[in-house]
Amino acid sequence: MTTIVDNSVRINEEGALMTLTLNRPEVGNAFSGAMVDALYQTFSELAGRDDIRVVVLEGAGKHFCSGLDLVDGGWGFNERSVGMLLGVQRRIARLYLAMRRCPQAIIATVQGAAYGGGLSLAAAADLRVADSTAKFCAAYIRIGLTGADMASSYLLPRLVGGSFAAEMMMTGRAYAADAMDKRGFLSHLTDPGEREPAVAALVTDLLATAPLGLRLTKEAVHLGIDSSSMEATMALEDRHQTLLSMTDDAAEAMHAFQERRAPKYRGS
Amino acid sequence: MTTIVDNSVRINEEGALMTLTLNRPEVGNAFSGAMVDALYQTFSELAGRDDIRVVVLEGAGKHFCSGLDLVDGGWGFNERSVGMLLGVQRRIARLYLAMRRCPQAIIATVQGAAYGGGLSLAAAADLRVADSTAKFCAAYIRIGLTGADMASSYLLPRLVGGSFAAEMMMTGRAYAADAMDKRGFLSHLTDPGEREPAVAALVTDLLATAPLGLRLTKEAVHLGIDSSSMEATMALEDRHQTLLSMTDDAAEAMHAFQERRAPKYRGS
Amino acid sequence: MTTIVDNSVRINEEGALMTLTLNRPEVGNAFSGAMVDALYQTFSELAGRDDIRVVVLEGAGKHFCSGLDLVDGGWGFNERSVGMLLGVQRRIARLYLAMRRCPQAIIATVQGAAYGGGLSLAAAADLRVADSTAKFCAAYIRIGLTGADMASSYLLPRLVGGSFAAEMMMTGRAYAADAMDKRGFLSHLTDPGEREPAVAALVTDLLATAPLGLRLTKEAVHLGIDSSSMEATMALEDRHQTLLSMTDDAAEAMHAFQERRAPKYRGS
Repeated sequence: MTTIVDNSVRINEEGALMTLTLNRPEVGNAFSGAMVDALYQTFSELAGRDDIRVVVLEGAGKHFCSGLDLVDGGWGFNERSVGMLLGVQRRIARLYLAMRRCPQAIIATVQGAAYGGGLSLAAAADLRVADSTAKFCAAYIRIGLTGADMASSYLLPRLVGGSFAAEMMMTGRAYAADAMDKRGFLSHLTDPGEREPAVAALVTDLLATAPLGLRLTKEAVHLGIDSSSMEATMALEDRHQTLLSMTDDAAEAMHAFQERRAPKYRGS
Repeated sequence: MTTIVDNSVRINEEGALMTLTLNRPEVGNAFSGAMVDALYQTFSELAGRDDIRVVVLEGAGKHFCSGLDLVDGGWGFNERSVGMLLGVQRRIARLYLAMRRCPQAIIATVQGAAYGGGLSLAAAADLRVADSTAKFCAAYIRIGLTGADMASSYLLPRLVGGSFAAEMMMTGRAYAADAMDKRGFLSHLTDPGEREPAVAALVTDLLATAPLGLRLTKEAVHLGIDSSSMEATMALEDRHQTLLSMTDDAAEAMHAFQERRAPKYRGS
Repeated sequence: MTTIVDNSVRINEEGALMTLTLNRPEVGNAFSGAMVDALYQTFSELAGRDDIRVVVLEGAGKHFCSGLDLVDGGWGFNERSVGMLLGVQRRIARLYLAMRRCPQAIIATVQGAAYGGGLSLAAAADLRVADSTAKFCAAYIRIGLTGADMASSYLLPRLVGGSFAAEMMMTGRAYAADAMDKRGFLSHLTDPGEREPAVAALVTDLLATAPLGLRLTKEAVHLGIDSSSMEATMALEDRHQTLLSMTDDAAEAMHAFQERRAPKYRGS
């Protein structure tokens, strides 16, 4: 099933997998206002979609996402009032928060440019695959702003460490896929055109998990990284595992384990 | 001196070094209830053992620790009540907290499987050595639960970064030793059968430190990683160093430094 | 313009770039009391220097900084009272806090030893370049103290991950530049004598940013790494970008972008 929320975003559903395709290839999938709104709406509605368990986020054409479309995005930047500017910031920022809050596992698959807001799309996903054409850049500092935008100053130090994160944000340099892989940003780095098998293998493994198990794992991963103590994290983990152990799916998993077969989950 | 707390755990003491050997090689050193209790008891009692300064944690046979023994562990999982399940969680969880709280430096030395609770044994240690037969897996998500268990969602992002930690916990994949080394999990990766010299060299360096210096360093390392500010961390560091500078061991270290000889510490 | 605050520190200013040279090469640029005070004074006064935007921190001779001068530093360690010892700790510690608080981007360029307080000078900088002669060591634990000193237990886990940070602090081992690079400590690792071009390229990129953009980026980077949530970080980012978008420099950046030329910033 393929839906078009806005011309700039294509949505395809196949079983428990949703594929979101950024679809402004003529401008490197740069963000228009309508495109950002469509993405925000989609990720927000995923909160209620128990049937969708994995989302693949990709870009049509040669680039993943080249950031904000300053030329033709319909952002109305000519006005320059505090209210308008903060409004634009919040309008885009809520997209990344919706990605973190939705219960689906999100895989970003990157070719060409992942710049500015496009870098943050990749960083806010749960897993990242890129081919060797990919380039990553926290471009903001090059247009008179700070390099810390769209959660880059939150996500980058947690994904690539404080040293490389500072370098990316303070210099605004673009980095090749192998530099990002060296610092831990990627799950897989592939040759050009070889991303699909790596993404498909991740999708297969993610869909082989119990539905509620995967959802609570995403929450636990995001809560654990900012936890103030090991005790607090373990308290959440203990409750999660007890709660899940009471489900029919966990009983099925145990039976399947003992019978050496794959479990058949029902999502409850 | 060799003690046997339970058949499943062997304890050997040699001077200031304790070696703990997981001893259920017939099941890959999978956790039985008695084994977990013996480990917990041992690490708890180490809090009062000023004479022991370093602990090496190893597994007998081909594997380090393959996780929970679901078949023959005596865990009583057939009942499936909330109280029983949460009780089992807490009974195992306290082992990892005891490892962090005990003042000894803990080195995990890993061959074969470090799965589930075995992965967390390695992660909760202070230093990790593995040979190329080692495989690491946050296996929990494969049995219908979350991938965040036994502090994996606390320890993994802090040891290997948020990206690889998410991948491990969400997919439940097993990773070879070189993948773990690439992401910073290991102090040393060796050829099969070559772990002993790397472990021995670490033990030598750790035992060459002043006893109280090493104990407070372990605490400082664990507090520093979750500190809310550099100021707070430096305040603790300043007090530690002042406190230690008032000890006889620090005076001895200074004299030894000036006389270009190795210091002789007395632990006070 | 070259100033000498104290014989032990040379200061050179060239436009918006300040170069600070540790100048006790006869003792590997080990810290004397006067040297630490001169560095602290310099970094403190940089808070009011809007004209200086980038600082390069280097060591004269074969070493970057070999740590505290225990022999000839004038520290008066023979007395050993709590008040004196804590006073010395705080006197040195405030230097690193001043480095973090000053609004300039700091690049450390390292050859030879970066030991103890010298390791922390490199770690407290924003960016690090080293050549293959560099060696890094949290030496403190070797003189009867903890390995956690001068913010090492705060900075190291955030820069190199918790596993390698623990190893450095607990063993007191010295690590070659490539080991530090493998764990993410460095922006650039060069051959001996090849640091200058790498540093110059970083300086060029940093000076190409809008002055206020770079200053707020440094603050955002340091706040982001300890943030308790993505929401809190994004709130700060949103305000920063809105604030900067109202500046003349941001308008100039936008015009320059549209006209495909380099922007000319005025710092307002």
